[in-house]
Amino acid sequence: MKSRNTCELPFGAVVSITGRGRFIFFNDRLRPLGLSAGQVPVLMLLYNEQNITQETLVRHYQIDKGTIARAVKKLEDAGFIRRITDPGNRRAVRLFLTGKGEQVAPVLREINREWEEQVCSGLSKSERDTLTSLMRTVAQNSHRNMQNTGEKPDAGN
Amino acid sequence: MKSRNTCELPFGAVVSITGRGRFIFFNDRLRPLGLSAGQVPVLMLLYNEQNITQETLVRHYQIDKGTIARAVKKLEDAGFIRRITDPGNRRAVRLFLTGKGEQVAPVLREINREWEEQVCSGLSKSERDTLTSLMRTVAQNSHRNMQNTGEKPDAGN
Repeated sequence: MKSRNTCELPFGAVVSITGRGRFIFFNDRLRPLGLSAGQVPVLMLLYNEQNITQETLVRHYQIDKGTIARAVKKLEDAGFIRRITDPGNRRAVRLFLTGKGEQVAPVLREINREWEEQVCSGLSKSERDTLTSLMRTVAQNSHRNMQNTGEKPDAGN
Repeated sequence: MKSRNTCELPFGAVVSITGRGRFIFFNDRLRPLGLSAGQVPVLMLLYNEQNITQETLVRHYQIDKGTIARAVKKLEDAGFIRRITDPGNRRAVRLFLTGKGEQVAPVLREINREWEEQVCSGLSKSERDTLTSLMRTVAQNSHRNMQNTGEKPDAGN
């Protein structure tokens, strides 16, 4: 693998490299737990709010239906979440964390902390604070734009 | 879709939201060209260096073999790249941009510029420069770590 000089890369390219690196880091750390990085968004939303549908996940993350369905199925098979059919609407399946799923939350936070330590190596505390603050603004703008792109969540990527 | 307050999110979460938003933005802009965001890394590496193999792409991006193979196949079918079998080693297929592929480079740069304008809305020129500089350091660390995770490139995600 060629080493890569990032000194001249535009902001978008360094975001892309960093995001991909985080995905690989999470996959590597999650594999022994029977989890993968693609399942993390499902767990994260369920930590904030249980009793949601797959449709809510699709809308929230703008990830295509098939990808969300596969992540949900794997999480259910591995015992991290359970699906309960709404008695009033048999098509609406509600998602809940199991006890096993709840126990993974601190593990995910620790993996994230470890990743942040690695990738922010060489930055001062003040630089890290500045970076996080600026990236929060960027993420807020990104999140607003995602709602406005008109992307069909079930369009294949 | 619920609005999301990013003020308290850790750095890793805002990187993840921003990366996903960029992927969706690129998909939205590339669809009329018959391209998708997942094919961009293949084109970008070929702009820097032609006459490479799929194995080089897998190692460079640490993306699994199947994903790279599908992206390469779609790009070939759509006429953006061509594959030439190495006469000295029939298993080694070399990748090259076509004229059509070369013409896409300025389009990708323009899409990235447009995305940066949107997500950096509200930041001053000085803040954008600071952010890009800090994120280049983070990407450099990420890239080095990707080489050290020991991830098997063909492990399914």
